[in-house]
Amino acid sequence: MDVEITLVNPVYQGNVGAVARVMKNFGFSKLVLVNSCALDEEARAMASHAQDVLEAAQHAPLEQVFSTSNLVIGTTGIIGPHSKLRAPYPLAALGSKLSVTEGVVSILFGPEDQGLPNAVLQQCDMLINIQTSPEYPVMNLSHAVAVILYTISSSKTVSSGKRAAATHVELSGLLQHTSEVLEAIEFPAHKRKRVLINLKRIYGRSALSSREIQMLRGVLHRIELRLKR
Amino acid sequence: MDVEITLVNPVYQGNVGAVARVMKNFGFSKLVLVNSCALDEEARAMASHAQDVLEAAQHAPLEQVFSTSNLVIGTTGIIGPHSKLRAPYPLAALGSKLSVTEGVVSILFGPEDQGLPNAVLQQCDMLINIQTSPEYPVMNLSHAVAVILYTISSSKTVSSGKRAAATHVELSGLLQHTSEVLEAIEFPAHKRKRVLINLKRIYGRSALSSREIQMLRGVLHRIELRLKR
Repeated sequence: MDVEITLVNPVYQGNVGAVARVMKNFGFSKLVLVNSCALDEEARAMASHAQDVLEAAQHAPLEQVFSTSNLVIGTTGIIGPHSKLRAPYPLAALGSKLSVTEGVVSILFGPEDQGLPNAVLQQCDMLINIQTSPEYPVMNLSHAVAVILYTISSSKTVSSGKRAAATHVELSGLLQHTSEVLEAIEFPAHKRKRVLINLKRIYGRSALSSREIQMLRGVLHRIELRLKR
Repeated sequence: MDVEITLVNPVYQGNVGAVARVMKNFGFSKLVLVNSCALDEEARAMASHAQDVLEAAQHAPLEQVFSTSNLVIGTTGIIGPHSKLRAPYPLAALGSKLSVTEGVVSILFGPEDQGLPNAVLQQCDMLINIQTSPEYPVMNLSHAVAVILYTISSSKTVSSGKRAAATHVELSGLLQHTSEVLEAIEFPAHKRKRVLINLKRIYGRSALSSREIQMLRGVLHRIELRLKR
């Protein structure tokens, strides 16, 4: 899967630069511009360290985007019974959908003031929409790109963000050790069980790593050492 | 749960305005500014139809943010074995976590050029991090806010079984007490700080209730009593 970000008739060059930046932040590099505003200093300033993405942007007519893409996804802020744009694809599922899609995927964003015209949306293979507050649904163009690229990239990298969670055996060892220390410090016997259950809930909610369990047991061990003196 | 977005030492007024806009897009209205740059036309232009959020922004010292929040979340782009900032909370789970948290939740964002200093990150109850490309991890400030508010607002988890979350002051009291006990059991001085930071992360992830903090302090008190014998 090869994701292209296509800006259709972008009006503010600062937004084009900001889009280039957030693309690079999430590891995307193919920017396509359809009938873009002029790009000068402001675009470069907003692109910051993504000058390469901005400079490599392709200028192309919209027909070419449709003819060279395997899947064209339209973005829209307006969804509902009164628009023709029903049934957007759930954004949370977009990443996993794209991970099983082959070829070129183009995601289209319309001009800042108007969004994509209905005629273009109707040509798209799929629509996506970011759920916003009805009070102010119009997002800044680069913010919309940021959110959508985040949803795609976060589903790709889910595993690398995971921490090594402790096993059940390690957790039981920690609780057993805690129980022994409670006895050693002469914690009232009738309250011990409740304390242990509480600790189990706290540890469970925090999803302890193996390393954190070692750290906690290190502290327990030190209490025992000190009591033996 | 009442989410506040706190910008610490923001440098570019356009970013402050853009943050106000995306807050309103996702239905958030409480903006707190700590030692902000001046806000003039550029901030207003970028805020677009979120002038109300920008105008209602509170200026406050950082200490006040910590003392009035139940949960303080620090954002950072730098995570890893070489930083002291281990174990960030998984961003995908943040929304459901907050949906069972009561009280004021402050999410802190550092200045554009530097991010939050380590001293502030260490004070935070929880850390979050947006996974970006190692090639260019530095996101625009308002893009980072956009992604994080999206993750919170898109989580539709129905909250049930809400527990009363402890305040920041109660948590600090627990950590101070723990620090005293570590000293009393002669836990190696050079390792104490790391243990305390690890415990803060664990407690932060598990969102301790006031009652659980009392329980934990009861155990600490019992250790002290036993050592005095």
